[in-house]
Amino acid sequence: MRYTYRPSVLRDLSPRELRRLIRNNQWDKPTAGLAPGYAQANLVILPFEYAFDFLLFCQRNPKPCPLLEVLEPGDYHTHFLAPRSDIRTDIPKYVIYRKGTLEAMVNDITDLWQKDLVTFLIGCSFSFEEALIKASIPMRHIEEKKNVPMYVTNIECRPAGIFHGPMVVSMRPLPQDKIVDAIVITSRFRAVHGAPVHIGNPEAIGIHRINKPDFGDKVTIKKGEVPVFWACGVTPQAVVMKAKPHLCITHAPGHMFISDIRNEDLAR
Amino acid sequence: MRYTYRPSVLRDLSPRELRRLIRNNQWDKPTAGLAPGYAQANLVILPFEYAFDFLLFCQRNPKPCPLLEVLEPGDYHTHFLAPRSDIRTDIPKYVIYRKGTLEAMVNDITDLWQKDLVTFLIGCSFSFEEALIKASIPMRHIEEKKNVPMYVTNIECRPAGIFHGPMVVSMRPLPQDKIVDAIVITSRFRAVHGAPVHIGNPEAIGIHRINKPDFGDKVTIKKGEVPVFWACGVTPQAVVMKAKPHLCITHAPGHMFISDIRNEDLAR
Repeated sequence: MRYTYRPSVLRDLSPRELRRLIRNNQWDKPTAGLAPGYAQANLVILPFEYAFDFLLFCQRNPKPCPLLEVLEPGDYHTHFLAPRSDIRTDIPKYVIYRKGTLEAMVNDITDLWQKDLVTFLIGCSFSFEEALIKASIPMRHIEEKKNVPMYVTNIECRPAGIFHGPMVVSMRPLPQDKIVDAIVITSRFRAVHGAPVHIGNPEAIGIHRINKPDFGDKVTIKKGEVPVFWACGVTPQAVVMKAKPHLCITHAPGHMFISDIRNEDLAR
Repeated sequence: MRYTYRPSVLRDLSPRELRRLIRNNQWDKPTAGLAPGYAQANLVILPFEYAFDFLLFCQRNPKPCPLLEVLEPGDYHTHFLAPRSDIRTDIPKYVIYRKGTLEAMVNDITDLWQKDLVTFLIGCSFSFEEALIKASIPMRHIEEKKNVPMYVTNIECRPAGIFHGPMVVSMRPLPQDKIVDAIVITSRFRAVHGAPVHIGNPEAIGIHRINKPDFGDKVTIKKGEVPVFWACGVTPQAVVMKAKPHLCITHAPGHMFISDIRNEDLAR
């Protein structure tokens, strides 16, 4: 039997309770706003033959690819992020790519599991946004109920093996008098993209049309506000797609892994 | 022809000049005190079959194993730490281990090089010690012209594949009124072990004889001083030896790789 939960009910559930609903296919929607205070993670699953290169890519590019946890080949249980979880079922929606082409979106990848698959869980900006909001720094895309605008830059990631490509950034417009606080606060959150990569001049990082984001939605930039750019977790996904591995499984955009780790515990 | 350089002459040489002397076998002694201001790195070289596990071990244990640079399989040129260097010749002394047993100490590993070797360069406490000394925090082992005392603890590293074992720590006795500063300063140096792992009670981390270090030398702990413990780069070496890979090459203790990166650039 399939239940529909209203977000207001879901908001009171613990990460563990939410993962159980998701596992039982009772929630297959985006996870933004669920389990406030707890870190959510991006998912990339690759066959072992690509795992060293991808792990090295993340090591070389910690701002766009901050690793929260990497599982042993074949393992589908997280140990650090959530001791009682199954990565094959505990994400609301998965995307299956073969040779860089989207093949299917599914709610469960148990049937697809192979002994050689390596799971990478990557930090997400939800964690630092919570800290910014607590510090009275406004998040325009949340106010406007949109996805954060994202842009492909001219900043090349440091390549590793078969993986290479430009950094993708997210943008949040901030009033001048909030910029320093926003940098200081996010610099503490290295596990979730850390300090911004650029402030103020989109052209300087190859962004020519600030009102035409490559991913997500356009947001209002008010007079006197400055666009601030953070490295974005879409970077590793774009880089993996470009490398066309024979198999890659990711979370569907916005349908993240909900962990038992508090955001604040990532600020160390 | 072989030259002998006095340390007073060496101290004025740039990292690049020092690496050239080392490459030409004109310096095969420890590197402590050379190229002040520049980061030095620990070396671990392993065949590719062990590389994913070891990279994962470092990812899971960033305090004892802070990676400064990992090279692509077969590559012997560093790109980040020093653009014009050769890892096969630019370290004053190497140790060759086969199945965990010391086979030889050599000045050059060019003849041993194989296409499948992966080089890991790991941060070293020399970098944060410099920052502590600049902040007028005394380093007892330097005052007493000794090696820093190191201890095997009861803190288990997070295992990865074939690699597991306890964390090794270094100890520096500090006056009470310097402890907070020492924590704040070293917390900025995540790339070189970061903040301490323990303060004050050696027994709590399984150290029963503070005057009998497992590695390095005993140092004086003056009345009122507190022992402060940092994760130590000997940890990955101990863990690798325990796993008995068929081949492993490391630097000889104290004979480090001298990089072109300033210590201060690691505090970001």
